Amino acid sequence: MSEEFRIVALVGKYQSADVAEALSRMAAFLHGRGLEVWLEAKTAESVGHAGPVRVRCFDEIGEGADLVIVMGGDGTMLTTARALAGHNLPLIGVNQGRLGFLTDVSHDEMLVRVGEILDGQYLRERRALLEAEVWRDGALVFSNMALNDIVLSRGEIGRMIEFELHVDGEYIYSQRSDGMIVATPTGSTAYALSANGPILHPRLAGIVLVPLCPHALTYRPLALAQESTVELVVLGERDAVVHCDGQTLFEVRAGDRLRVVRSQQGVTLLHPEGYSYFAVLREKLHWSALPHMA
Amino acid sequence: MSEEFRIVALVGKYQSADVAEALSRMAAFLHGRGLEVWLEAKTAESVGHAGPVRVRCFDEIGEGADLVIVMGGDGTMLTTARALAGHNLPLIGVNQGRLGFLTDVSHDEMLVRVGEILDGQYLRERRALLEAEVWRDGALVFSNMALNDIVLSRGEIGRMIEFELHVDGEYIYSQRSDGMIVATPTGSTAYALSANGPILHPRLAGIVLVPLCPHALTYRPLALAQESTVELVVLGERDAVVHCDGQTLFEVRAGDRLRVVRSQQGVTLLHPEGYSYFAVLREKLHWSALPHMA
Amino acid sequence: MSEEFRIVALVGKYQSADVAEALSRMAAFLHGRGLEVWLEAKTAESVGHAGPVRVRCFDEIGEGADLVIVMGGDGTMLTTARALAGHNLPLIGVNQGRLGFLTDVSHDEMLVRVGEILDGQYLRERRALLEAEVWRDGALVFSNMALNDIVLSRGEIGRMIEFELHVDGEYIYSQRSDGMIVATPTGSTAYALSANGPILHPRLAGIVLVPLCPHALTYRPLALAQESTVELVVLGERDAVVHCDGQTLFEVRAGDRLRVVRSQQGVTLLHPEGYSYFAVLREKLHWSALPHMA
Amino acid sequence: MSEEFRIVALVGKYQSADVAEALSRMAAFLHGRGLEVWLEAKTAESVGHAGPVRVRCFDEIGEGADLVIVMGGDGTMLTTARALAGHNLPLIGVNQGRLGFLTDVSHDEMLVRVGEILDGQYLRERRALLEAEVWRDGALVFSNMALNDIVLSRGEIGRMIEFELHVDGEYIYSQRSDGMIVATPTGSTAYALSANGPILHPRLAGIVLVPLCPHALTYRPLALAQESTVELVVLGERDAVVHCDGQTLFEVRAGDRLRVVRSQQGVTLLHPEGYSYFAVLREKLHWSALPHMA
Repeated sequence: MSEEFRIVALVGKYQSADVAEALSRMAAFLHGRGLEVWLEAKTAESVGHAGPVRVRCFDEIGEGADLVIVMGGDGTMLTTARALAGHNLPLIGVNQGRLGFLTDVSHDEMLVRVGEILDGQYLRERRALLEAEVWRDGALVFSNMALNDIVLSRGEIGRMIEFELHVDGEYIYSQRSDGMIVATPTGSTAYALSANGPILHPRLAGIVLVPLCPHALTYRPLALAQESTVELVVLGERDAVVHCDGQTLFEVRAGDRLRVVRSQQGVTLLHPEGYSYFAVLREKLHWSALPHMA
Repeated sequence: MSEEFRIVALVGKYQSADVAEALSRMAAFLHGRGLEVWLEAKTAESVGHAGPVRVRCFDEIGEGADLVIVMGGDGTMLTTARALAGHNLPLIGVNQGRLGFLTDVSHDEMLVRVGEILDGQYLRERRALLEAEVWRDGALVFSNMALNDIVLSRGEIGRMIEFELHVDGEYIYSQRSDGMIVATPTGSTAYALSANGPILHPRLAGIVLVPLCPHALTYRPLALAQESTVELVVLGERDAVVHCDGQTLFEVRAGDRLRVVRSQQGVTLLHPEGYSYFAVLREKLHWSALPHMA
Repeated sequence: MSEEFRIVALVGKYQSADVAEALSRMAAFLHGRGLEVWLEAKTAESVGHAGPVRVRCFDEIGEGADLVIVMGGDGTMLTTARALAGHNLPLIGVNQGRLGFLTDVSHDEMLVRVGEILDGQYLRERRALLEAEVWRDGALVFSNMALNDIVLSRGEIGRMIEFELHVDGEYIYSQRSDGMIVATPTGSTAYALSANGPILHPRLAGIVLVPLCPHALTYRPLALAQESTVELVVLGERDAVVHCDGQTLFEVRAGDRLRVVRSQQGVTLLHPEGYSYFAVLREKLHWSALPHMA
Repeated sequence: MSEEFRIVALVGKYQSADVAEALSRMAAFLHGRGLEVWLEAKTAESVGHAGPVRVRCFDEIGEGADLVIVMGGDGTMLTTARALAGHNLPLIGVNQGRLGFLTDVSHDEMLVRVGEILDGQYLRERRALLEAEVWRDGALVFSNMALNDIVLSRGEIGRMIEFELHVDGEYIYSQRSDGMIVATPTGSTAYALSANGPILHPRLAGIVLVPLCPHALTYRPLALAQESTVELVVLGERDAVVHCDGQTLFEVRAGDRLRVVRSQQGVTLLHPEGYSYFAVLREKLHWSALPHMA
């Protein structure tokens, strides 16, 4: 048993029967190693629970647990990372289906891999978070965090929105488009990739701006140093919304100022030894791995 | 005076003072040439009117006018073309601001150019229209036309939608994305261009499908013969909408089938002699026109 | 035995042992059906031959054969289609490796499928060809054909070239870039797709121009009606070359005029019944085929 | 007169009459301020010289000058930056034509701006350089530097090349394509931008890899931390070349290993006060600068 991790919290994808079963096996496995096991409250509500598991809300987990195992897909990982952003808890991602970018332990190997991690065989990786704030008439009306991206986009009316981009207080341009993605390196392989953005390696200390269907053809993805302050000022009267990790929604209006900076906090991921960021990409993007030269 | 055009209808961009003044000048000019001038009813309501102009609704214009002059931007042209799609009336587009793709007569030259056209000096061009239908449980629940494009897209929730593509009754693929644009050649230089679609020359008898931020990276714009029947079947429970020319909105739901075909009808544009489709593109897209070789 | 096809010519990928074996099996199979079998001369030279097969050059095949079976990959198909372009011979493509866009009969099923085709069970499809001519000082200095594409591109020096684009005699623009692809619908899924071009369905009567790394960002793929005459006039003194289907090379210089039109001739492909253009694309591009709705 | 800069070297675009005149004016201006003026040897050879100017080769300039003023375009700036890379001399770029990314002082204002810079009113900026090495059978066969980019690309034969990508010693993928650009942030607005790469702000400590027309559609631009070691191993027998800043050419062959790292050295640019990186981009890319909100 590892000294480091005494209390392990489990978070599962809600409304998933597969996850319920996997959570039980994981809880029994951890219990068998003499660890205290907590189950996140909404997970418990959704999948049920039994046995020696204690139910705890995210705040309690953040205060008291030593390690969090997330079982589901990248979406569950995003939810958990954001809920625990204030704390410095390491996360392990176990995927129930196809390997995810953030959930790199496969369901089939989960007990072996988690066992190894508990034995101290792991890679620790720090991922950046973004903070979003919306300012209206001098008042803060919305704030949130994101591990992937903060997106300003049109609402359902289907007309392009207009906004200004400012970086570090300097006016850069005005744009008519479907919106703008502000992404971390982690988020560069999520929505931003669909919008033709580049891939940013997690060790690159940057933020990437990817316009969504810009009306003019010379707006390109723009990668900035991570110390940059990005501001998007909404123009015009069309309905626009802000999303954080595709999960939180806030309706903005003309004159609102969406401010995005890198958070002081971050997310700590634990990967099994042998983890490779590029191997995950190669598999998910079907990159060719021809037999290569000696 | 041309024999061909005796009754000329004017349509103007609503709520625009500049247009009001231009409409007056145009009406006086046409009147001076002995023509009967009609003013579209909502235009009249919006900008006011006076003098020898008769106010007529779009249906009356479609039935009785010989020519329509649209004063505004491409948006006004789209509205007018769709309102008159059932009729075979030629349209002239006069731009109040920057030259448009569809409004290729500049405000400064409008009297000269319209005069020339009335004298029979013009190029006649036919543009294709698309018809959209939404079928739900075997019933037609929505139908509309578009000169530019029919778009299936996510609503404001910000999550990708899922749908199937069928062409001529054959299942092609399933896609998770922000949506899909089905565009005419005319529409290929509008929203579809922002979404990285190709430009289709108006004489190319085709329809182009341009995916919006597809989740997988191998979905590309697809140009089909214009006889093709395109069907998009909505999957999943996420909110999705259909737009026609960015102007009409219909909310679709899981199982709805959006069917798009080329219309039997089309739009007839009259251009001044010397009009060049490519010259408009070159100007609007800032293509280089270096001094070239003899 | 089919009345239609009495003499069947075989063409194989050169320098391929696998193909040699497959050619033998195919020859024996055809011979067993009472057909006369010809083997293309360079194929014979490359793979050897024996038995009742007669060796014939492409011209003889073009004059005398009723059907050509091409065994190899898309490259071999391109070579054959171009060599036989003047004749109206139907081609069947048998792939030795991974399914190709043009070689849609798999090696494993080749005898069954060819048997069915000989029995009259096939789909006949006509594919467009392009003709390239280079004019220098009023003289024709090069001409060739292509099933996929005609490409003007920089040589190895690595500097962008400059050229003018003219369509139907009208000057369109000047461009600095790595070059320009002029592709048929068939070629739209080849090199043009790598260069970010759209997919053109073979039934779309069009030609697509895809710029290679244009210096300015507003040059986009342009799909034209197939009647169009495309001319690229080379500017400046940098080395530039013309390729046809990636196989023929011609060095052009300042002032040279590359003229591309659709050929009067075409290529006839025979596909097994059940062939689907989109099914090939779906497989090759890894498009999703989720279980879909009834 | 500034204490800092006593000897100022001038470098001009070769074979340019405009530059000859501008060099004379600049030399006279600097002389008038009591400075010693050197003229780069090949510039002198190309444009001629007279008066109190001393002719010096790049090595002498690197050893002895305090400041270099480059008069020409971005190409001349690249040449100069690479020639002086071993030294730590600040450069000022004066553009003779349209404003460049690197030559941000306009010809019209050059005396005023250079005067201000000599008075100490300037912004100092450090730009990263890349080092390229080609290893063959364990021996170093080529090495060079680049301010913009190192490019592995196909030669004139027109067939795609194949190569492996390794990052920090890890095999990433094999790729068939026209080649690969490895660019600095400075180079991200040059050739890499034409190849659909993202813009990297100069303060972002990164390197970007941009594939040229990759055969498979899931290869995307990849931005790495600047400490990364990038290796491209050439596969197959096709002709391939390496370019540095589009200026140096080296022919590589199968098995050759192109190794790119960030240089320990860099380039120091002096800009007039008020210089804005984004303002240059906005002008050159025609980004919109609508009247914006207070």
